[in-house]
Amino acid sequence: MPNWNAIEGSLATPKGFRAAAAAAGIKKAPGALDLALVVCDEPRASAAGVFTTNRAAAAPVLLCRQNMKKNRGRARAIIANSGNANACTGRAGFAVAEQTGKAVARLLGVQPHEVIVSSTGVIGTPLNLGLILKQLPTLKEILSAESAPEVPRALMTTDSFPKSAVLQSKIGGRTVTLAGVAKGAGMIHPNMATMLSYITTDAAVAPALLQKTLRAAVDASFNRITVDGDTSTSDTLLLCATGQAAHRRVSDAGDPLLKGFRAALEDLLIDLAQQVVRDGEGAQKFVTITIGGAASARAARRIGLAIANSPLVKTAIAGQDPNWGRIVMAVGKAGEKADRDRLAIRIGGLEVARDGQVVPGYDEAPVARHMTGRDIEIEVDVGVGRGRATVWTCDLTHGYIDINADYRS
Amino acid sequence: MPNWNAIEGSLATPKGFRAAAAAAGIKKAPGALDLALVVCDEPRASAAGVFTTNRAAAAPVLLCRQNMKKNRGRARAIIANSGNANACTGRAGFAVAEQTGKAVARLLGVQPHEVIVSSTGVIGTPLNLGLILKQLPTLKEILSAESAPEVPRALMTTDSFPKSAVLQSKIGGRTVTLAGVAKGAGMIHPNMATMLSYITTDAAVAPALLQKTLRAAVDASFNRITVDGDTSTSDTLLLCATGQAAHRRVSDAGDPLLKGFRAALEDLLIDLAQQVVRDGEGAQKFVTITIGGAASARAARRIGLAIANSPLVKTAIAGQDPNWGRIVMAVGKAGEKADRDRLAIRIGGLEVARDGQVVPGYDEAPVARHMTGRDIEIEVDVGVGRGRATVWTCDLTHGYIDINADYRS
Repeated sequence: MPNWNAIEGSLATPKGFRAAAAAAGIKKAPGALDLALVVCDEPRASAAGVFTTNRAAAAPVLLCRQNMKKNRGRARAIIANSGNANACTGRAGFAVAEQTGKAVARLLGVQPHEVIVSSTGVIGTPLNLGLILKQLPTLKEILSAESAPEVPRALMTTDSFPKSAVLQSKIGGRTVTLAGVAKGAGMIHPNMATMLSYITTDAAVAPALLQKTLRAAVDASFNRITVDGDTSTSDTLLLCATGQAAHRRVSDAGDPLLKGFRAALEDLLIDLAQQVVRDGEGAQKFVTITIGGAASARAARRIGLAIANSPLVKTAIAGQDPNWGRIVMAVGKAGEKADRDRLAIRIGGLEVARDGQVVPGYDEAPVARHMTGRDIEIEVDVGVGRGRATVWTCDLTHGYIDINADYRS
Repeated sequence: MPNWNAIEGSLATPKGFRAAAAAAGIKKAPGALDLALVVCDEPRASAAGVFTTNRAAAAPVLLCRQNMKKNRGRARAIIANSGNANACTGRAGFAVAEQTGKAVARLLGVQPHEVIVSSTGVIGTPLNLGLILKQLPTLKEILSAESAPEVPRALMTTDSFPKSAVLQSKIGGRTVTLAGVAKGAGMIHPNMATMLSYITTDAAVAPALLQKTLRAAVDASFNRITVDGDTSTSDTLLLCATGQAAHRRVSDAGDPLLKGFRAALEDLLIDLAQQVVRDGEGAQKFVTITIGGAASARAARRIGLAIANSPLVKTAIAGQDPNWGRIVMAVGKAGEKADRDRLAIRIGGLEVARDGQVVPGYDEAPVARHMTGRDIEIEVDVGVGRGRATVWTCDLTHGYIDINADYRS
């Protein structure tokens, strides 16, 4: 049983935050929300972040990495636009990100290195700084609980729905709220953070411990999803904690208060990560893959992701075909230890293969029925150890081709 | 200029080989060719092979690996079926491969470990040994230059055309012939050998050197192609050299005679590998990706394959969209050194990006025109060193989804 309750809300629901969204004209569609500002009013708030592992990281990511070093875990604002990723824009692009951060800092009276700048959208086109600067006064004016729910919508690119989740937990006898938003539908492959996601909370956790806790939670959530195996140049996840829930501040990894926060944060991130997969470009099905019997948890995750990233497995799922041979192919491709002659596979809880071959008297009909559903469950035991891991993915459909053979916002 | 001429012919064109194909009823389509036999009549012939790196290797691959150890580079026959991969068939499947090899050995009066057994097709369904055994006497009877050209057709699964090439070269003043066939259209990703391919030649090269030369040639050809990043459980490439061209036998890597053979073999394998890519499942376009300026040739190849395997790059190519930002994303994803601010990209020989950003006054029209062609050229300089590599791939289209959401032969 989770130790928390899901509630309605926004990034401004945890104490100490305000947020707003606006239409800056970066997206072509007139009036489309494409700029979001999140402000943390608590000067003593802690911040933690993870960023893409892509070596061609976009300008805003480079700036954020610099800022997170300078601010020593203190961030006060997030400015994020969609419609243009400000990636592959050279040094000029870096200057645009820098100018954006400085302008927000001036606007709010904070330090430039306390501002997190993110951009998502088309790559290789210069981002128009003027469009952002023009909207900043308006954004500041409408910072409120009313505009805050629009933030996830302002982050969307090929997303078909805005992604958010809010939950409340008791920590040290106090009610603590965690809120999160995310965007992402393609270029989704686990490498630290794999999209844009912002988390606000009024929990009281020291910066270093917050960073460590965030990294572990990302590892159990966003680093276990994949849509297409491609890693965005812009992935950014930022967590900001005001401490205004007023429980005893947690700064030690052994503190029993951390346990509840860690569990709530992990569940929040898993919720958001699963929303990203459910909205995977062209996705018709949500697929849960559980690996057991691996040499280690790490090996299990690698095997799970090899299955989750295999175009042949993903197209078989799209075709509602319980083609378990392709699952075996993907297990072997992962390069981790697996006992070919002890391999067992269940689809929708039904045993399909055992000891490396189809089960005696295998009846495909009920398995095929499971494959026609929206949620597909695949369990694989590779027969060598006790390592376990679960990963999530979607199918590969004509919709993915449609979206990506044409997409340029 | 190549040192060889392409000629008409088959696996039986090099001196010392006979081959034949038959319809054994393994494929569902009545009368479809699905069984091939290649016989080497020269007892002193050398053989070399490379096999899949997939850890869930199919039964025939396990048997071939054993045989190649026992026969110390001497193989006398290849028996290959399509329609069923004899993979994920457990210990029973291994016994079927073993019985097949033994039956062919008896038929031809050779040792069981001198027989190479391959199967390709659906995974996870028991292979009917009886269907193969029944055809062996017929196959032996029709072994001839007339039936030999049908061998590549008998290997086809989702292939849309049979793949073969024959070339002649002068080595040590003698005419040497090399012939090759290949099959493969999906589950194509470079990991040693990536499909079924058989090469015959009458060159005279000692087994150990033949193996070394083959491995290098595979590295320059089949290990540089990708269709979908999935690695088959059955990949097998076997080269058999009778020596009947009667030039001085080559057994030393420094022998100048080796140079011509090596070049001819490499060109033959590149030709076959490119045929596999051109027939990539659903492929509409053939894509040549050349990486320069990398830290090493190995790094260049890894970057090239990251681009070649990116679903976002491949769908952009399918959409005839010169979306160079996705190329940058894939460069970064490869994890190799690249200078984001010195990156340069050419498409169809036209400069698109330089110093990590779009070139001044970029005119997309001629680049877009190149993208409408059948053959797409992408050149990337990553700006850090002198490593170079070329890889080949195809686009990702609705056809791939159609084929793989339904394929079960």
